[in-house]
Amino acid sequence: MASFEVRTDLAVEEQEQISGEISGVSLREWRGESSDLKWSQVRVLNNGGAKTLGKPVGAYLTLEMKPLPDSGQGLRIAAARELARQIRVLFRQMSGDRYPTSVLVTGLGNQLVTADSLGPKTVGSLHVTRHVDRAASVGTKTSLSALSPGVMAQTGMETAEILRGVIRETRPDLLIVIDALAARSVARLGTTIQLTDTGIRPGSGVGNHRHELSAESLGLPVLAIGVPTVVGAAAIVHDTINAILRAPGHSAASAAAAATDPDADGFFRMLRQIKAMDPDEQYEWIRRLTEPECGSLYVTPPNIDEIVGDLSDIIAESIHQAIFPDLDPEDER
Amino acid sequence: MASFEVRTDLAVEEQEQISGEISGVSLREWRGESSDLKWSQVRVLNNGGAKTLGKPVGAYLTLEMKPLPDSGQGLRIAAARELARQIRVLFRQMSGDRYPTSVLVTGLGNQLVTADSLGPKTVGSLHVTRHVDRAASVGTKTSLSALSPGVMAQTGMETAEILRGVIRETRPDLLIVIDALAARSVARLGTTIQLTDTGIRPGSGVGNHRHELSAESLGLPVLAIGVPTVVGAAAIVHDTINAILRAPGHSAASAAAAATDPDADGFFRMLRQIKAMDPDEQYEWIRRLTEPECGSLYVTPPNIDEIVGDLSDIIAESIHQAIFPDLDPEDER
Amino acid sequence: MASFEVRTDLAVEEQEQISGEISGVSLREWRGESSDLKWSQVRVLNNGGAKTLGKPVGAYLTLEMKPLPDSGQGLRIAAARELARQIRVLFRQMSGDRYPTSVLVTGLGNQLVTADSLGPKTVGSLHVTRHVDRAASVGTKTSLSALSPGVMAQTGMETAEILRGVIRETRPDLLIVIDALAARSVARLGTTIQLTDTGIRPGSGVGNHRHELSAESLGLPVLAIGVPTVVGAAAIVHDTINAILRAPGHSAASAAAAATDPDADGFFRMLRQIKAMDPDEQYEWIRRLTEPECGSLYVTPPNIDEIVGDLSDIIAESIHQAIFPDLDPEDER
Amino acid sequence: MASFEVRTDLAVEEQEQISGEISGVSLREWRGESSDLKWSQVRVLNNGGAKTLGKPVGAYLTLEMKPLPDSGQGLRIAAARELARQIRVLFRQMSGDRYPTSVLVTGLGNQLVTADSLGPKTVGSLHVTRHVDRAASVGTKTSLSALSPGVMAQTGMETAEILRGVIRETRPDLLIVIDALAARSVARLGTTIQLTDTGIRPGSGVGNHRHELSAESLGLPVLAIGVPTVVGAAAIVHDTINAILRAPGHSAASAAAAATDPDADGFFRMLRQIKAMDPDEQYEWIRRLTEPECGSLYVTPPNIDEIVGDLSDIIAESIHQAIFPDLDPEDER
Repeated sequence: MASFEVRTDLAVEEQEQISGEISGVSLREWRGESSDLKWSQVRVLNNGGAKTLGKPVGAYLTLEMKPLPDSGQGLRIAAARELARQIRVLFRQMSGDRYPTSVLVTGLGNQLVTADSLGPKTVGSLHVTRHVDRAASVGTKTSLSALSPGVMAQTGMETAEILRGVIRETRPDLLIVIDALAARSVARLGTTIQLTDTGIRPGSGVGNHRHELSAESLGLPVLAIGVPTVVGAAAIVHDTINAILRAPGHSAASAAAAATDPDADGFFRMLRQIKAMDPDEQYEWIRRLTEPECGSLYVTPPNIDEIVGDLSDIIAESIHQAIFPDLDPEDER
Repeated sequence: MASFEVRTDLAVEEQEQISGEISGVSLREWRGESSDLKWSQVRVLNNGGAKTLGKPVGAYLTLEMKPLPDSGQGLRIAAARELARQIRVLFRQMSGDRYPTSVLVTGLGNQLVTADSLGPKTVGSLHVTRHVDRAASVGTKTSLSALSPGVMAQTGMETAEILRGVIRETRPDLLIVIDALAARSVARLGTTIQLTDTGIRPGSGVGNHRHELSAESLGLPVLAIGVPTVVGAAAIVHDTINAILRAPGHSAASAAAAATDPDADGFFRMLRQIKAMDPDEQYEWIRRLTEPECGSLYVTPPNIDEIVGDLSDIIAESIHQAIFPDLDPEDER
Repeated sequence: MASFEVRTDLAVEEQEQISGEISGVSLREWRGESSDLKWSQVRVLNNGGAKTLGKPVGAYLTLEMKPLPDSGQGLRIAAARELARQIRVLFRQMSGDRYPTSVLVTGLGNQLVTADSLGPKTVGSLHVTRHVDRAASVGTKTSLSALSPGVMAQTGMETAEILRGVIRETRPDLLIVIDALAARSVARLGTTIQLTDTGIRPGSGVGNHRHELSAESLGLPVLAIGVPTVVGAAAIVHDTINAILRAPGHSAASAAAAATDPDADGFFRMLRQIKAMDPDEQYEWIRRLTEPECGSLYVTPPNIDEIVGDLSDIIAESIHQAIFPDLDPEDER
Repeated sequence: MASFEVRTDLAVEEQEQISGEISGVSLREWRGESSDLKWSQVRVLNNGGAKTLGKPVGAYLTLEMKPLPDSGQGLRIAAARELARQIRVLFRQMSGDRYPTSVLVTGLGNQLVTADSLGPKTVGSLHVTRHVDRAASVGTKTSLSALSPGVMAQTGMETAEILRGVIRETRPDLLIVIDALAARSVARLGTTIQLTDTGIRPGSGVGNHRHELSAESLGLPVLAIGVPTVVGAAAIVHDTINAILRAPGHSAASAAAAATDPDADGFFRMLRQIKAMDPDEQYEWIRRLTEPECGSLYVTPPNIDEIVGDLSDIIAESIHQAIFPDLDPEDER
């Protein structure tokens, strides 16, 4: 059964949700050069895996970092460098083993809503070169262009419409889409970066962009880079109820109650029903229960200004290193 | 038992917490001119009340509005006007029935952290007159001065030190302190304004200002105006667990389990223990349980930029009307 | 002789430059509803007029206001209303007497450079409706969309490329282009708004956008709205030297010198040469003389933040009134 | 004769104005470690010098750089390091050869007016330590505190009142005042930094702060750091008229005219009168002549946002190096 609400944009959170191996989904995890950096790759291999995980077929790379405010400048530099390396690998895989010669970066989201401003902030830190390269380049360099179109409430246009037009006119080889995401766990806010070759379905996160941005809809490979900046308030509750259901003595209490008292049994039947639901149903149930109390569906940490500033810097730096490899001489391309 | 964490800065939320009448605390509620405006006044009358409520002796006025993004401009105007009226009443009460002749407004908080920027944003919208009045005024007008000192991490100085110095030099009759607050309920974010004649203990909310700003510490009446912009993540969980404990069948199940199975009884003993705790202990217990999942202690809604913009406008406008009553001719002073 | 530097984007300043009637150019002036508003219309009627004036064939409407900081809110409201009225007239003229059913507004310029941010600031104040209308409209309303593409140094793309793509996808009937302009006279900064049906040649002002935005290049009528925010430093000098050349006694001194002393004659020959130049040559000569002293070619007033804020509000409001005429009921459409 | 308008805040510009040696004023110039950095020190030694130069007795150090947008990051780093070295020298001279143990930095000016925001921007980049040191320091470190009080139009209070109060409460050993200045030459905007041990008379530049900030008025040494961000429009004209008066043939023409024609003589009498004026009178005369054309008295370059960003970074960095010398290990203290 499909749920209306996608409760996380992170494939790795969907995968964590399901215990044991999932048919059609592969998982690989490794440490980065710094032990404070952890990578995981979820591959959705076929439609079966896509159905189980609720994510399209493709590769989902996740970089997890220690919270940046507690870490030194060194972690930021290491994260940008590792990210750049993975972007380069994806560039080749997505372009049929050729390196793209012109890349367009688009920053989705609303610059005036801090939690939704990761895309525009990243684009604002990029050094574009397409207008220069056109004359100067001799074919070996990848040129960079960038656009922050704004959200539909600001433009009156679908992001996909704007990009389709711009792509048709400027003909980049590859599109990078940067967007703020929704996660399930508060601990992921500002500590996780997801790369995927599947593009993006805007609006599955907190924003409200309606059309898909993908190779199918736009006609060129689409690399999506996302950072969770919001969590559903219901997700916080969800974790807690599960903790209660796992509490020692719960099963015995339930059995005893069932044996003696129909009312008592009703109470446990409710708890058991929740437990028996698949994660999406469970989430939906909790959401309905908590919405009157929680009011807003999503929340963000008060230091979101700092999170968005830090992460947009890291992502912009990694794109620079991936596109202008001279900036990082120790990495061969 | 006292808890280290104050889980709300709103007296009205403390009061709601306690069922029935509280000795030493009075409560009065009324509708505003618009039915979308609701006022309540909690008065802490003596030390007993202060101990029970966890708030100093004084008056706490709370204005509750319908969420502003869904409301028209009319609600904003009505809210500012009603707020101005209450500020004028407090001005007289706090100044021994004389109207203050010079008011200093200080906006606490960090301009660069959206959720903490209500104070500086409000001060930025004020039209100060002290430097003009000095020459022109003939004694009947109240002059206005304003300062956003920044937070200690930006200045290296306690807010109280800065204000003490400025007050000594410029000798206002009354201080208005504006600050972002913490609330228990997400529904209060951006919909509630609290006025109190007790001043402020900075740091009880999300900020980290150490010294009290009050008549005792500063030597002049201190009117605090606050708006909740953050809630503790644990508070969201807290509400849900209470909802589960109130679920039909819970008591019967518990009794049945106690009768038959020691393990089952353990589970209910845990739930009962939680229920038996006083609100502060209960909150503390849940906070410890959920912190690993919730990471950050506080959360804020993604539309916090809009909330802070709207509420700082309303508060600045209400201060203008209270201090320059010609702006609102239908109100006599 | 053509000059490389366009010293003003304002047709009315070019016209003022030339004494007497100009063949192929018509001028009309009138007062607005407020005596602090003055309109002038320069019409370039044919290629002869275009050559003399250095502006393409078309209509150039100029609204001059008293400086806003010294004026009340009333002048802003009157300016927006009169502007809206002229925009409506231009809408009809430019669309072959039909009212456009969908208008795209584009704000040129760099949001991060205050003097170049008029376009993005105006777009930021617009309430777009295209995404809503699509479903709800019944054919009588004009829908509004908007985009601030950024400057080429930020995007790596020509503004014309971006707009061409977006226009092809979203098919508006009419394009409004908003941009900061260069003027000759400091007194015009923040007091003048120019409307023209000729579109815009970006880069003729302070910016550096290369491609023309016009009906010819984009395939739809282009209404340009501009506000001068910078003046050439040389222009300031230009005025002064002309004042000296007009000083009483100058001619007599010159004649006397010519009669008696070859060196003296050399000095006056220089002054006479300057005087004999056409305005563009004269400007160019002075520019070369003063550039070492003046350093930067353009200057802007220190209150440019306020100017851009005020003017972008007025323009956004006038577009709203022109497109959603219900907002201004006293004007029939 | 005194002029009402101070046309430059830079002692080095006053000194350049006067040809030959000035009694009571010494001048020393030297190159920095980079040949793109040039230092000059003007010392006003006594009241005679102060009268001639129009600046109080004291030392005025000026650092001139090549325009930063054209220079690499290296020049910024070198400028900050040289500035830090001079600040350390001044620290010792101004504190009676002891190094100050607690320094308060105050950023004057209005954050919302780009050309006046150098002070607040610099303060915003400082890492204050006073609130930390208080506990941790063992007497060897200099603690740093900082405040941007805003301008009188925002606070209703004199900057001097606010600082007097804050200094009395927090008792720093030395005050650094950072402010935007006015210069005569456009070429100095964004390329010049002035250090002086005389404090500051706010309002002599573009701002409008009335009271002096000096050792006399505040009771502690005051080191002022300023960067010119505006020039008088009249100053641009001033340079040009002088260039005309120096043009070859001018004298001969004048003599010839005087010999033959009274009217002609009148013209040259005007030019000679201008030439005979002392610089202040001359400036005043030109200002009156050009004001109707120039409108605003001061102008600033359109890239002022970039200038203020660059220079505030350099100044903040130099203060850090001067106060926390560990950050620049090659400099012994």
